[in-house]
Amino acid sequence: MSKHGMVKAVGTHFEYEDGTMFYPFGTTIYALAHQTPELVEETLNTLKDAPFNKVRMCVFPKHYQFNNNEPQFYPFEKREDGTWDPQKPVKEYWDNLEYVIKRLDEMEIQCDLILFHSYDNWGFATMSQEDNLKYLEYCLKRLGDLDNVWWSLANEYDLLLSEITMEQWYEIEDFVAKHNPKGHLISNHNCFLLWDASRENITHGSYQIKCLANVGRDVKKFNKPICVDECCYEGNIAANWGNLSGEEMTARFWQAIASGAYCTHGETFLDENDVLWWSKGGKLKGKSPARIKFLRDIVEALPAPLEPYQASFFEFLDTLPDEVKADFDSNPAGRSFNLAHGQQNHDDDVIMSVCDHEYIARAKDESCLLKYYYQRCQAFDNVKLPEGKKFKVEVIDTWEMKKTVAYESAEGFAKVDLPSKPYMAVVATEVK
Amino acid sequence: MSKHGMVKAVGTHFEYEDGTMFYPFGTTIYALAHQTPELVEETLNTLKDAPFNKVRMCVFPKHYQFNNNEPQFYPFEKREDGTWDPQKPVKEYWDNLEYVIKRLDEMEIQCDLILFHSYDNWGFATMSQEDNLKYLEYCLKRLGDLDNVWWSLANEYDLLLSEITMEQWYEIEDFVAKHNPKGHLISNHNCFLLWDASRENITHGSYQIKCLANVGRDVKKFNKPICVDECCYEGNIAANWGNLSGEEMTARFWQAIASGAYCTHGETFLDENDVLWWSKGGKLKGKSPARIKFLRDIVEALPAPLEPYQASFFEFLDTLPDEVKADFDSNPAGRSFNLAHGQQNHDDDVIMSVCDHEYIARAKDESCLLKYYYQRCQAFDNVKLPEGKKFKVEVIDTWEMKKTVAYESAEGFAKVDLPSKPYMAVVATEVK
Repeated sequence: MSKHGMVKAVGTHFEYEDGTMFYPFGTTIYALAHQTPELVEETLNTLKDAPFNKVRMCVFPKHYQFNNNEPQFYPFEKREDGTWDPQKPVKEYWDNLEYVIKRLDEMEIQCDLILFHSYDNWGFATMSQEDNLKYLEYCLKRLGDLDNVWWSLANEYDLLLSEITMEQWYEIEDFVAKHNPKGHLISNHNCFLLWDASRENITHGSYQIKCLANVGRDVKKFNKPICVDECCYEGNIAANWGNLSGEEMTARFWQAIASGAYCTHGETFLDENDVLWWSKGGKLKGKSPARIKFLRDIVEALPAPLEPYQASFFEFLDTLPDEVKADFDSNPAGRSFNLAHGQQNHDDDVIMSVCDHEYIARAKDESCLLKYYYQRCQAFDNVKLPEGKKFKVEVIDTWEMKKTVAYESAEGFAKVDLPSKPYMAVVATEVK
Repeated sequence: MSKHGMVKAVGTHFEYEDGTMFYPFGTTIYALAHQTPELVEETLNTLKDAPFNKVRMCVFPKHYQFNNNEPQFYPFEKREDGTWDPQKPVKEYWDNLEYVIKRLDEMEIQCDLILFHSYDNWGFATMSQEDNLKYLEYCLKRLGDLDNVWWSLANEYDLLLSEITMEQWYEIEDFVAKHNPKGHLISNHNCFLLWDASRENITHGSYQIKCLANVGRDVKKFNKPICVDECCYEGNIAANWGNLSGEEMTARFWQAIASGAYCTHGETFLDENDVLWWSKGGKLKGKSPARIKFLRDIVEALPAPLEPYQASFFEFLDTLPDEVKADFDSNPAGRSFNLAHGQQNHDDDVIMSVCDHEYIARAKDESCLLKYYYQRCQAFDNVKLPEGKKFKVEVIDTWEMKKTVAYESAEGFAKVDLPSKPYMAVVATEVK
């Protein structure tokens, strides 16, 4: 167990029990525990040098593309009718699972443990609700003592709706909450239908989304931490969820952080042995992990955690030279702007808002600010600093992993030169 | 005038009067005609070596950021009360405008002539409707003989809504249509509110949008050509509409073409003399024009123009290996997929559809196909070729401007190797 204790949700962030901040930088290895001991060892070795402090993995084995191997053990014995009997757990299976989780704990890695998922070939996804609860009773008791466990009710709970109705999901959520004496974190992860993060038992959002523009809005709305636990993976498979560039995987981490939220990595490069990191582990091949490390170092050095800062649509006017602003106001364009925007077709407005979204976050105490420019290749920006304070302003090349000091001490609107290329950020930290 | 005659809209494409296809590859030089003769000459020289065959430019001068210069002449004399008198045109102004349009015509460049716009400092945007129509009467007569003119009712008509109501816009549209004996093309360009392209007088859509995922849908819906006449510009200014990378500007052209639509370029690089191509012309500095030339050559060599091909959401299943497809169908995930997707929050669905959109187009006679992969870095794709024919299949690196033959003759699903990087495309052309 970590010397800092367990991780808890506090406001829109995570902290250890001793008050130390925990900034999750997750990765995904769904079937980690169901690989050969050699592969598990190789994966744990990789994690030693990786930037990740959280691993999403499943209790049950996985059957899917690139996942055709049988696990060494099965979690339960079978009844005479061929169904699984959750009251007859197989010791070796659970010992192995516990072993892997403990090994992660030794490396200060949290385990976001997925209790149900749909990619099944054995019948664990299609048990009766009675058996689901019996399984949970055992699992929560068996693994609940491990400090680094987070309960993830499901991976893509909504792709189990043919088996588990919404009412049954609520029952599962309630059951987990009631059998959770140590207060492990609880979330539920979606495919299409975001699980309602406002629910009392839910400690944080666990989102699958492909566009992060609205995450900051939801952090504010729910006032809970949000982990974007799936936003496609860096890789080169044909499926559209598994062929992000290293640039784009990295960008989504920056977007999450600059929304006051968190992100989870995954990697799906074709492999001659079908060992894709996202499900089996092995070695990391992508370009994003080094950049995620660079980001993690920046975030952990901030004086305070970041909250989403929603710039008003018209705030850009404040950054324009006075004569330009006066022109805009005096022109038909300025007079018609609200009139036209207010009549926009709803869907067009949704899409335009995503395209125009600015990723800006500030600490609650306004001791620091992060603005992420994503694909915008601007030569400069007038960065609006929190009022009444002075800031050191740094330009961050998130891809080249370089920092350049723009100002040792700036205030108000700081005109910051940028190198006219994508994937830049600005970090401002208060100078006392 | 072109030896092929005037350009007309035919179906969802453009043709010259003699039946030769005209594929528009536009650029934007709003205030071209209001610059010094030297700058106009420099711009026309640049256009000689540029890939553009259409220029969007304004009748009236422009006042805006980077546009503080007075025009040499004004279009009308003033009345005693200080308002402009459209019945007293200034010969030099219109001669100059005609000269520029004719020079474009000599280079086989169409002129998308913008009749109204809001970025005004003189009062041309705030004339009475009576004067608007008098101006139009003169303008349409004065310039209507020029073969290469297209009437663009406005740049961002909706940013003039404070001056010109929707009813008045309909009146303007009707007036232009009624005073257009040679049948020049007619469109209207928006900021937020797309002009209804289904209207009888409108020959084609002239869109400002920042995301092209739904353009193919609209081409089908309206059965008219759509020009994405503004989708932000390659450059490095701070405004979010003017700092696309060369990659992204190029990508939007490919997205448009792979939607059966067309795209218009613009360039906004900071310049010590405030000569930004997008409004004043000068020299091109960006990386996209060379790539747009490469694309234009490919499009013009196709056996037939492309129509949007809307792949069904589930079509990807057809491209999976049989055992994977069988797995999907037999799994809870497969059984729950429609159930979950059908319940998705509307806004989330709109955004996810944009993220998942596949840019695929086919000729109506299925003699060719284009698939554009945008940011997807896949190592291969199973490309669904039109049935019952054989195709030469080429892999296109849209950024490096290289073509590689994958198959001299393929049919059905062609497994095409791709280089695991962004901005790739596949073109298939029928082998007779």
